[in-house]
Amino acid sequence: MNQLIIDDAVERVRAALEAGQIEDAIGYLNTLHPADRAETFADLEIEDQHELLPRLDAESTAEIFEELEDDDALAATRHLTSAQLADVLDEMDPDAAADLLGDLPPDQAASALAEMEEADDVRPLLAYEDDTAGGLMTPEFFALREGMTAQQAIAFLRSRDLDAETPYYLYVVDAQDRLVGVLGLRALITSLPETVVADVMQRAIRTVQAGTDQEEVANLMTKYSLLALPVVDADGKLAGVIRSSDIAHVIEEEATEDIHRLSNISSDGDLGPWSPVRTSVQRRLPWLYVNLFTAFLAAWVVSQFEATIAQLAVLAVFQSIVAGQGGNAGTQTLAIMVRGLAVGEIEIRDVGPALVREIGIGLLHGLAVGTAVGIGAYLWKGIPFLGVVIGLSMAGNMVAAGMAGTLVPLTLKSLKLDPALASSVLVTAVTDTVGFGLFLGLATAFLPLLKPV
Amino acid sequence: MNQLIIDDAVERVRAALEAGQIEDAIGYLNTLHPADRAETFADLEIEDQHELLPRLDAESTAEIFEELEDDDALAATRHLTSAQLADVLDEMDPDAAADLLGDLPPDQAASALAEMEEADDVRPLLAYEDDTAGGLMTPEFFALREGMTAQQAIAFLRSRDLDAETPYYLYVVDAQDRLVGVLGLRALITSLPETVVADVMQRAIRTVQAGTDQEEVANLMTKYSLLALPVVDADGKLAGVIRSSDIAHVIEEEATEDIHRLSNISSDGDLGPWSPVRTSVQRRLPWLYVNLFTAFLAAWVVSQFEATIAQLAVLAVFQSIVAGQGGNAGTQTLAIMVRGLAVGEIEIRDVGPALVREIGIGLLHGLAVGTAVGIGAYLWKGIPFLGVVIGLSMAGNMVAAGMAGTLVPLTLKSLKLDPALASSVLVTAVTDTVGFGLFLGLATAFLPLLKPV
Repeated sequence: MNQLIIDDAVERVRAALEAGQIEDAIGYLNTLHPADRAETFADLEIEDQHELLPRLDAESTAEIFEELEDDDALAATRHLTSAQLADVLDEMDPDAAADLLGDLPPDQAASALAEMEEADDVRPLLAYEDDTAGGLMTPEFFALREGMTAQQAIAFLRSRDLDAETPYYLYVVDAQDRLVGVLGLRALITSLPETVVADVMQRAIRTVQAGTDQEEVANLMTKYSLLALPVVDADGKLAGVIRSSDIAHVIEEEATEDIHRLSNISSDGDLGPWSPVRTSVQRRLPWLYVNLFTAFLAAWVVSQFEATIAQLAVLAVFQSIVAGQGGNAGTQTLAIMVRGLAVGEIEIRDVGPALVREIGIGLLHGLAVGTAVGIGAYLWKGIPFLGVVIGLSMAGNMVAAGMAGTLVPLTLKSLKLDPALASSVLVTAVTDTVGFGLFLGLATAFLPLLKPV
Repeated sequence: MNQLIIDDAVERVRAALEAGQIEDAIGYLNTLHPADRAETFADLEIEDQHELLPRLDAESTAEIFEELEDDDALAATRHLTSAQLADVLDEMDPDAAADLLGDLPPDQAASALAEMEEADDVRPLLAYEDDTAGGLMTPEFFALREGMTAQQAIAFLRSRDLDAETPYYLYVVDAQDRLVGVLGLRALITSLPETVVADVMQRAIRTVQAGTDQEEVANLMTKYSLLALPVVDADGKLAGVIRSSDIAHVIEEEATEDIHRLSNISSDGDLGPWSPVRTSVQRRLPWLYVNLFTAFLAAWVVSQFEATIAQLAVLAVFQSIVAGQGGNAGTQTLAIMVRGLAVGEIEIRDVGPALVREIGIGLLHGLAVGTAVGIGAYLWKGIPFLGVVIGLSMAGNMVAAGMAGTLVPLTLKSLKLDPALASSVLVTAVTDTVGFGLFLGLATAFLPLLKPV
């Protein structure tokens, strides 16, 4: 649903509240899909949220909380009593409830947990970080015992509350709850009633550990087109199941994070075209200041050659081309490395061959672009040696760009940091300083040769 | 599986082929997972592929083709006779087979189709573009008739070949094959045998048209956490089903495409850290040349002020800060817009409010950064009015950055082009020319005031 329709919904709710018609506002909200309702709710003024929240039933509130961004959901809990919050948490998906509990202050989390009826479903999930397999999985799955007959298994399924979100796979565990196989529903339906599950199940099964990073989970599920992936604990016990519909969110979030970070935007939580101006400035301005620092560094390099520029102002015309093209080439390499790390195509130990390869590509690009720039500069300004200086420094900067574009993200990754974090600032700092330094340095060294013929 | 393991597999296959042990090579390939087998195959030399392909059975070849990039699969078809290709296409998923047939030359596609046994499954799919709902869906789904009893429905399911990839949803159609509802398997199992399907199915159901763009499909499935989404044709007939495991691929591909395009890399097909150097240069070098053109444009702006720079070389020190910071701010806005368009948070008609908002943010950033730069420049060089000139031009360029960062992607989108395509070149061209022009223009106008005190 697009923003204009959400805006309209917000307007209608606000108008109803202003007219004192709180029941109308709630009635209208209930006509919306949960996802749209949550978006509308998040866009309301804090006072309106405060007025509505205690009046919504626990189920609606749970749906809203599941759809809200983490920070917004946390803020919204302040409008609820501990008992109300416990009711809402009971209605939420256990993994979402665990995420929210993990964000609450410890006191508030403990008292809400104490009042919850389904605290036992949620408690084991609290141990897992949000961005791991354990944090993504739902503990609501169907595990058959390997010794069950087909008839017993069907009776078991009939007795349980399968909801429409449950994937088609049935997992099979042994007496110690260890995952031993998987069974399709059709194999079960078409088996003779006395067939033992262990005899028809498939034993080879792909699993992840609860601590596995969500990016690795996403890569595995995407590569092998898995509709669901079982999660096991350290003892091999089946702990939960991750659905591919959960993973789509993860892939989208990680991609947004990479795009934001590569574009020098802080990416804790979501920043979109309609985020509050205050949030937008908070996420963007600090990086502009960081960039400013590196820009002054590059400017300092230029200032070392002020005397040369005073003698030959045309150098100021070309210096930005050398620096800028290096920046572009470095950004290309950086994007390929960050994306390659994200989808698992490259790892830290591949640094050697990757570096050699990017230096080679840098040389090729340097030759191609350096020649073009050199000829262009000569034709424009009629100074043959200016072409040589600019071409050489361009080629050198392209190699520096390939090196920085490779080493910066791989080094960040090896330091257990996000390879996209601050990497474009660092790469541009390298290509700016190397570009200005090489070009103006060579120009200073060969100044007598840089006269028009 | 990481590249080193694939490299090892490639080495083993190659060694076996060199030793003339083709059966060993095939045997080893068959021990790999289809996804890894396809990656290994794609990394082999063309001659090795040529030698292996006719010896693999149709099923293995089909799996390899499904995993290969479109271009690689197309190239590989050349090693097969028309009859072999038809057998392979019969073994492939119908949507993948239709994609491949769509890429083949018309003659070759027609003759392969004529020899296929399951051509009827594939033919309807040929009408859809790869990147639409119709191109993504599988026509292999289970449709119950609304008039069936639960007993008849279960008998029907037993008679069909449900594979493990089939989601848990059962769709219900009327006598004209129009989609009228959906039923969970549990609702079916727990119903009395004589219950009529129409009485227990859920009637409200989210669908897409076959021509819907894949990005819109991905947004819908992600937003509403759908495990599967039915696709209907113009008459409301159920045409196929899209699974969330297919959509994860789409989201990943679209994100990679956005990241590549924002970083000035052509994104037709996949480019990774290990793509052939030739491919890498082909995708990157043309954009470096495009950038070079805009860099010369910016340089031309600088050259208009050579006389000013010759009098005051310190301007060359600061010109890049003004241009570069504008570029950074423009890239931020651009990334937010491109991502916002991709996930459906903003649309073309929102251009007015978006522009106002980004101009406002540009002003705030311009004030904050302009003041800092102005003070920094004054402290460093001791020229008070230099601080004023640089601060003002910085503020102006930040506003230009917000405008370009908003208008460029929204204009591209309204021209039915990818909003990320070439947008970063265009935005940087604006911020470079505006930045240099404003700063050097103001400096020229107030040159007498720019003397150290």
